[in-house]
Amino acid sequence: MKKPQSGIIPEDRLGIATDLYQLTMANGYLAMGKEKEIATFDLFVRNLPKNRSYLVVAGLEQALHYLTNVRFTEEDVELLKQKPDFKNTDEKFWDYLRNFKFTGDVWAMPEGTIAFGNEPLMTVTAPIIEAQIAETYLLTCYNHQTKIASKTARCVEAAKGRAVLEFGMRRTDIGASARAARAAYVGGAIGSSNVVAEALFGVPSFGTHAHSWVMSFDSEEEAFAAYFKVYGEHTVALVDTYDTLEGVLTAAKLPGEIKGIRLDSGDLVALSKEARKILDENRSKNCKIFASNDLDEYKIEDLLSKGGQVDIFGVGTMMTLSADEPALGGVYKLAELVRDGVAIPKLKLSKEKCTYPGKKQVYRKYNDLGEFEYDIIALRGELDKQKKLYEKYDDAGRLEALLVPMIEKGKLVYGLPELWEIRDRTICNIKDLPDKYRRTKADHSYRVDISPKLDALTKKTAAKYGGVKKC
Amino acid sequence: MKKPQSGIIPEDRLGIATDLYQLTMANGYLAMGKEKEIATFDLFVRNLPKNRSYLVVAGLEQALHYLTNVRFTEEDVELLKQKPDFKNTDEKFWDYLRNFKFTGDVWAMPEGTIAFGNEPLMTVTAPIIEAQIAETYLLTCYNHQTKIASKTARCVEAAKGRAVLEFGMRRTDIGASARAARAAYVGGAIGSSNVVAEALFGVPSFGTHAHSWVMSFDSEEEAFAAYFKVYGEHTVALVDTYDTLEGVLTAAKLPGEIKGIRLDSGDLVALSKEARKILDENRSKNCKIFASNDLDEYKIEDLLSKGGQVDIFGVGTMMTLSADEPALGGVYKLAELVRDGVAIPKLKLSKEKCTYPGKKQVYRKYNDLGEFEYDIIALRGELDKQKKLYEKYDDAGRLEALLVPMIEKGKLVYGLPELWEIRDRTICNIKDLPDKYRRTKADHSYRVDISPKLDALTKKTAAKYGGVKKC
Repeated sequence: MKKPQSGIIPEDRLGIATDLYQLTMANGYLAMGKEKEIATFDLFVRNLPKNRSYLVVAGLEQALHYLTNVRFTEEDVELLKQKPDFKNTDEKFWDYLRNFKFTGDVWAMPEGTIAFGNEPLMTVTAPIIEAQIAETYLLTCYNHQTKIASKTARCVEAAKGRAVLEFGMRRTDIGASARAARAAYVGGAIGSSNVVAEALFGVPSFGTHAHSWVMSFDSEEEAFAAYFKVYGEHTVALVDTYDTLEGVLTAAKLPGEIKGIRLDSGDLVALSKEARKILDENRSKNCKIFASNDLDEYKIEDLLSKGGQVDIFGVGTMMTLSADEPALGGVYKLAELVRDGVAIPKLKLSKEKCTYPGKKQVYRKYNDLGEFEYDIIALRGELDKQKKLYEKYDDAGRLEALLVPMIEKGKLVYGLPELWEIRDRTICNIKDLPDKYRRTKADHSYRVDISPKLDALTKKTAAKYGGVKKC
Repeated sequence: MKKPQSGIIPEDRLGIATDLYQLTMANGYLAMGKEKEIATFDLFVRNLPKNRSYLVVAGLEQALHYLTNVRFTEEDVELLKQKPDFKNTDEKFWDYLRNFKFTGDVWAMPEGTIAFGNEPLMTVTAPIIEAQIAETYLLTCYNHQTKIASKTARCVEAAKGRAVLEFGMRRTDIGASARAARAAYVGGAIGSSNVVAEALFGVPSFGTHAHSWVMSFDSEEEAFAAYFKVYGEHTVALVDTYDTLEGVLTAAKLPGEIKGIRLDSGDLVALSKEARKILDENRSKNCKIFASNDLDEYKIEDLLSKGGQVDIFGVGTMMTLSADEPALGGVYKLAELVRDGVAIPKLKLSKEKCTYPGKKQVYRKYNDLGEFEYDIIALRGELDKQKKLYEKYDDAGRLEALLVPMIEKGKLVYGLPELWEIRDRTICNIKDLPDKYRRTKADHSYRVDISPKLDALTKKTAAKYGGVKKC
């Protein structure tokens, strides 16, 4: 009998965790003798999503894990050999895969950095086959986690200092869920309902009981009393299985004060105000009000503006799936090719999909209050500290280079921060973001300059391929 | 130095791949002596998403894998022991987890079944702790895959017999991507770009080259010629790196006819018509036109209605993330509890979130043309073949029971179909769906009845908990 499959990707088969065209191209590059050409790819988001004013970078650690661990197994080779595309493939390619390792250099923004459109979040410089095969996996890391971290940061802002918990595990794929909880934590959530995310990443997990707990007893009184008997002050009573306000009163009359009650349906503004009153009148002033039910930054903002009395927001579906912006369009584009020691800048000219050539750095200019002033996408080294141009930009306020070396010749050279350190970094960075970008209504006016040298290189390269008319 | 983590869930740690509250409840049930109570939970989608007329059931195989493999490791126990919630927890619970196995019964709709709102896709009957812990993982399976299979079926319908390929790997989480490719195949796609989905599930993988291939050569001519040299008639040339129609001509003038060209930007209607003309005029009548670029069922329908000359659609982001309906709201609700041999029907009455009690079956009535006529949610056995009620419904056209036994006493009793068989099932089922539900514009008028006995039980149970006024 056929055995059911989990579909969990084995850790030793990361090589084939990619689009087939990466492997057909890999074989093509090898067959054409291009394996020694050194490519530089930029990973970036062209335009910010309509409802986002900034991105919170997340997914780097998993990208670095991939680059330092990716291999092909003999099983992978056998699978590929059976595909019609590879029927004339030389054994040289299979040996290449058998010995595959990533040997290149990677620069990237640390996780928790705030980024904007067109800014490389990562640049990969490696023999073209290695850099090419990595494309898909790297994009999955960033497109998933940066999307969720960016959405979470907005929910956290809307909550104005109240806690946000990630509750969306059940709405996403099981594998996606652990990395979603991680990304939400990076974005400023205080934790998640997801237990395996605590095991894998150290994301604090939270949770008490569901409606089924209440329904499994003959009455709500009995259900709350039982939970209190087992968990005492750790109890958070879900009060809306039958009648919400009666549920609040039942919770408030437990023999000791509990941590909180949770509202999960109905008019959260009215119910939370009534609940607060009932709790306060029943010796439960410290009992917190948790709220959930399809919340997002828009609903949190609305609820608080109407005086909703909520202390902790459980945010699931809308945040975990970034439902108002379900796709982050991170791309990975060839920017330079070094052939026989000569660097050839590369760009793509097709309509609305133009790219910038060359090896880049992103600089952030802060004003003298320490707030973000504007960013500059430049050529790497163009604004080095010892150079005149640096001084020009740096005259009032700090200039920060956002891309830092992560991998050199295939070896990790970056001291990975703990996850809570990344979360702190996000929170500090958002504090330095001018107010208008922190609002729920998105603002796309943040200035991102193209440096003089990058601009000149772009024009020169475009001219070579038929002009910039379409850019 | 800290090592980067992949976040891939180890196969032996599926037990903690759940929400924390499932485990706090589990401990609570055990502490209250409820471990012998037998619960029945229904997994269902309350209301169809606004833009969906039906669901294509997918995710069952992974749910069955979970139920027949879920265990807790000693590491899991250690992790939980350190959480404040569990500080007073009895060793009995840790032993319970150490010996945990799912021992219950599961009925479910086979994958590829068409389902509607409120219909249980799966019912789980097991000791309450086991059924409770499973909730989150089971929901992740269905909410992810059924969402994508349902979206894909719409894209396939819109393509009117042309092929649809799943291209969205890079836009989703890496773990989600393999199960997304599987779901898209179940929904009728002919395959995916995702190689690891072929290894894990047998989803056929497809792909040729990207813009970076073209950009890595000094000219497009050189790039196409090189690809053709390696892959010959398997070549699909991506023609829009510089000037699309020039690219088409370059591809058409290769020394032999190729499999296809791919358009990935610009006005696909106009470009595909022009491309077809160029190909036909250049001895490439059999050369197919592939199109991609943020396609979905709406864009495919529009493109074909305007005479676009596309043979194969590469559909990524919008399908893989189900971007117009990014969340499927599958839930898992307690419907019955057996305590000391007595069955107690259960329901939830909170506003807009009411449920139906009892152990259920879903029957589908076909008309005499073999088309779906309506469905009946009933109590299990209520419409058994030998009963009068069955005959009444079955008088003209077939009556089909959709939920079938999958697991008995923890053992798999269902012969798992091959993935291509599931895909065939979907295609046949959709053929039997009346036309109005197969259109891009959603129609929610499909009739789903509540059987006489289920209706009576619902009213009786609701009355016990304060009436049906809110339902």
